[in-house]
Amino acid sequence: MMFYQDRFVAKEEVHLSPDDRGYYFGDGVYEVFRIYGGSIFEKEAHLRRLERSAREVRIDLPYSIQEIDDIIRKLILTEGTVDGTLYLQITRGAAPRAHPFPADAKPILLAYCTEVSRPISTITSGIRVITYEDIRWLRCDIKTLNLLPNVLAKQTALDRGAAEVILHRGDLVTECSASNLMMVKDGVLYTHPANHLILHGVTRAVVLRLAKAAGIAVEETPFTTQALGEADEVFITGTTVEITPVIEIDGKPVASGQPGRITRRLQTSFDKAILG
Amino acid sequence: MMFYQDRFVAKEEVHLSPDDRGYYFGDGVYEVFRIYGGSIFEKEAHLRRLERSAREVRIDLPYSIQEIDDIIRKLILTEGTVDGTLYLQITRGAAPRAHPFPADAKPILLAYCTEVSRPISTITSGIRVITYEDIRWLRCDIKTLNLLPNVLAKQTALDRGAAEVILHRGDLVTECSASNLMMVKDGVLYTHPANHLILHGVTRAVVLRLAKAAGIAVEETPFTTQALGEADEVFITGTTVEITPVIEIDGKPVASGQPGRITRRLQTSFDKAILG
Repeated sequence: MMFYQDRFVAKEEVHLSPDDRGYYFGDGVYEVFRIYGGSIFEKEAHLRRLERSAREVRIDLPYSIQEIDDIIRKLILTEGTVDGTLYLQITRGAAPRAHPFPADAKPILLAYCTEVSRPISTITSGIRVITYEDIRWLRCDIKTLNLLPNVLAKQTALDRGAAEVILHRGDLVTECSASNLMMVKDGVLYTHPANHLILHGVTRAVVLRLAKAAGIAVEETPFTTQALGEADEVFITGTTVEITPVIEIDGKPVASGQPGRITRRLQTSFDKAILG
Repeated sequence: MMFYQDRFVAKEEVHLSPDDRGYYFGDGVYEVFRIYGGSIFEKEAHLRRLERSAREVRIDLPYSIQEIDDIIRKLILTEGTVDGTLYLQITRGAAPRAHPFPADAKPILLAYCTEVSRPISTITSGIRVITYEDIRWLRCDIKTLNLLPNVLAKQTALDRGAAEVILHRGDLVTECSASNLMMVKDGVLYTHPANHLILHGVTRAVVLRLAKAAGIAVEETPFTTQALGEADEVFITGTTVEITPVIEIDGKPVASGQPGRITRRLQTSFDKAILG
């Protein structure tokens, strides 16, 4: 079942208009919520980010946050989703193709649940990644449907036998194609500051909170690809990848090539957080 | 009538899947062809660019260029479009949402005609524009569906009583939200080189060709916003805007505030080119 344009309908009955601005311009924003045990993890943070993304691209939410929350609840209940994701996107609406905002179009919300297991294998063993030049626009903090650079980067990783890319703008590491990046050096946890160059990940914020609570020093500061190459530990964070260790970058092992000690500690704290 | 997924159908019968990657990721490319007197102007150039855009984002064209040409012809004939545009986009296909290229999805072509008159009023009188920071990705040479930055820039222009934005990356002028930019200084025509920072406009190429044929010196080189402010003439070029003079930038008149002499000459040559 999906929620589409004011109604709960079967997926087969969702017929998008070719005039939907999501289709012509990628003119919309989205969220991926994580469902654990039938409940959304960090729901408020995702809803706040959705509200912010819409505001930044000047899309009026078609419903109040309370109404969106009700839609989400109903979808999860009806589908009986226990462990999975809830995808939700809002486009600026349907109107004959023209760049300017349409005068009368009403924003369109699409949402649905998918059963997704936790990525136990990669969380445990870690992943291989490659580095890749970050050529995205300068508002990566907005979660929009303009994701073609991310798609191309991710596919390049897979083509090269890697699971993700680590993006860098010139020398400076930003994040990954669909997750944030963190590294540990001499006991300090480093990650790019939450400015316009990275998505302000919900899991990123949770992990920083857990790190601080555990007495781990946190530095939100840009670091170079060279510093990355000399890291003691590297991991990515994201709504579906959770905390996934990076064990190899561009064919070179990260430290010993095994998930690190602080990564493991944070994973344990994260498990406690999601299991409530 | 539209062409959609192997068939000519009424617009009302075009039902996009929510799983179309155009909708989730803006994962597609497009062209806007110009129809004058029932024929497409510079058709080969548009088809070549379509082929190139698809190749650059690694989308396999669902039909040969000859077949696409046949689809275009049939649309124009059936619709009886005399003066207008033909919009054509190709997405990577429909598949459950995931960043990597889907294994089995077939690219989807959507195309249709719209009656559009020549923009006589603005061609004659010129337009007011504003300058605006260019924050787009670094492959603006690919005509993709990731157009949200262009949409936001264009809307900002309208909000400020202007018709277009002139984008600049730092000090250097690139192009506009949906057109290329040219300026004249001391009899020389300047425009940004056709590299990764601008769209390689079909009309841009036509105008440069016409300028050279008319003995006007052409410099494809980046210039600053300061040089722009001191230009003798400024105009934009594009498939639907043709050659539109810019008479005011950020509230300040361009030279005398009237369309310039070289602009007028090029417009006359352009008229001859499109009227065959």
